[in-house]
Amino acid sequence: MAAARHSMLDFKLGARADGETILKGLQFIFQEQGMTELVYTWQDHGYLSTYINKNGSFLPPILRGGAIDRYWPTAHGRLVEYDIDEVVYDEDSPYQNTKILHSKQFGYILILSGDVNLAESDLAFTQDIKGSGKEDYSGKDVLILGGGDGMVTMVEIDQMVIDEYKKYMRKTCGDVLNNLKGDSYQVLIEDCIPVLKRYAKEGREFDYVINDLTAVPISTSPEEDSTWEFLRLILDLSMKVLKQDGKYFTQGNCVNLTEALLLYEEQLGHLYCPVEFSKEIICVPSYLELWVFYTVWKKAKP
Amino acid sequence: MAAARHSMLDFKLGARADGETILKGLQFIFQEQGMTELVYTWQDHGYLSTYINKNGSFLPPILRGGAIDRYWPTAHGRLVEYDIDEVVYDEDSPYQNTKILHSKQFGYILILSGDVNLAESDLAFTQDIKGSGKEDYSGKDVLILGGGDGMVTMVEIDQMVIDEYKKYMRKTCGDVLNNLKGDSYQVLIEDCIPVLKRYAKEGREFDYVINDLTAVPISTSPEEDSTWEFLRLILDLSMKVLKQDGKYFTQGNCVNLTEALLLYEEQLGHLYCPVEFSKEIICVPSYLELWVFYTVWKKAKP
Repeated sequence: MAAARHSMLDFKLGARADGETILKGLQFIFQEQGMTELVYTWQDHGYLSTYINKNGSFLPPILRGGAIDRYWPTAHGRLVEYDIDEVVYDEDSPYQNTKILHSKQFGYILILSGDVNLAESDLAFTQDIKGSGKEDYSGKDVLILGGGDGMVTMVEIDQMVIDEYKKYMRKTCGDVLNNLKGDSYQVLIEDCIPVLKRYAKEGREFDYVINDLTAVPISTSPEEDSTWEFLRLILDLSMKVLKQDGKYFTQGNCVNLTEALLLYEEQLGHLYCPVEFSKEIICVPSYLELWVFYTVWKKAKP
Repeated sequence: MAAARHSMLDFKLGARADGETILKGLQFIFQEQGMTELVYTWQDHGYLSTYINKNGSFLPPILRGGAIDRYWPTAHGRLVEYDIDEVVYDEDSPYQNTKILHSKQFGYILILSGDVNLAESDLAFTQDIKGSGKEDYSGKDVLILGGGDGMVTMVEIDQMVIDEYKKYMRKTCGDVLNNLKGDSYQVLIEDCIPVLKRYAKEGREFDYVINDLTAVPISTSPEEDSTWEFLRLILDLSMKVLKQDGKYFTQGNCVNLTEALLLYEEQLGHLYCPVEFSKEIICVPSYLELWVFYTVWKKAKP
């Protein structure tokens, strides 16, 4: 079967099970020749097809049905293929699906409920959500919401994420997670909402609050109707435990999601106290898209 | 037609032309619902199909047949979709196909014969191929092979690339290309091989030689049989015009292409003079893969 523009092989199979076996065998042969883009079974039919793009060259074949899923769409919804060569870990925690995949170039990647969360290559993320190396943390009180990767007072809801970081992501967390309490840090395995409320009630204040929660945070008891109200609740509580001259760092989203970013910025106008913010656009290697980070601070009192 | 695992709609069309019109209309409706992965015409047949991945969510649909090609596979051959929203320029020069596409997040992207060459987002590339900001260029003689984006003595074979940089890539080249000769720089629109030979014959030497040629360089008169021999010819000539304590900077390739990188490093062992090298792995935003850069220098004389 010679390669041809939009060529397709449509064939009748005896039974569904047979079909899948045959297709699996054929898939290998065609992939080897860079010819197959698709192998489908459809009831008792199977088909293979190839595609040549406008420049006359093949697009890389889409690999289906393997043990390893290589396609993890970006936040912006673009189709991208990762160089995943191993599924290291794949378990449901009480809060989310957690996977550790291995990428040839990005190293271990933590994927939470289908979202690429952090890879060993992504020092840029960790640097930026701490203020791009422009902050002096010595003697400062720091509160981290989420994160899983260990610093100062960190509140992480999911023990499974901590365990995965300890086992696979040592390049990002070092030895910090060996003990959940050290001389200068503690890790609380708790939902951050009641923790923030407790701190606010006690009048505890921090120089820095770093929100490293997932883009849509998990809560055991969401009190608000919409994601945006929930995000605003976290923001409001964070501002309550932030010193007047403190800084709040958080990730935004893909730079292309202008509407979502605008909605987030609108929430910043509806907090209990007036705030100002700046944003930076950063390339996080394994994300395969540019990412927005925010710095938020309380407006100086007049 | 409800979304279903591997659902497919196979239908008979009256004529090829009709089929394409109908498919184009249907494609829009299905894409809007995130349902279509593929729209094909096959002789007088058309079909649409959807795919649901293992996590039960759709992969983003593959968009076919539009005016804009969004799929530009990486050097490592992974399928990646770019957020291209405009084909700004698309012409064949005497040497290569040159395109300027616009990406929502990466800005203008120069694509040379199908390879993503540089985008406005890619300051990291320009910084690294100049030695990551660790070099002091004041009073130094610098020779740039290729590049198109203008510095010191630059030898660029393709006037069309210069014109595209001037028109679309001002963020990367500034005003330098307005004149091909300035107080401290000149741009030669020539094949770099005869230029290097001329300089070598004249005994001209540089502090820095920056090889910013495309991964597989263009030549008007390749004298060598294989790409590797041609690459070694450029390396050898470059070493001939490099001062004893000078540095040669060049890009390698995707970090995953370990065999190609190893072959390149082997070439470095077969030059007319002994050399040493170091390498860095850099994230160039628009490449969507990690990229290796080399620094090569002449081994100190014993």
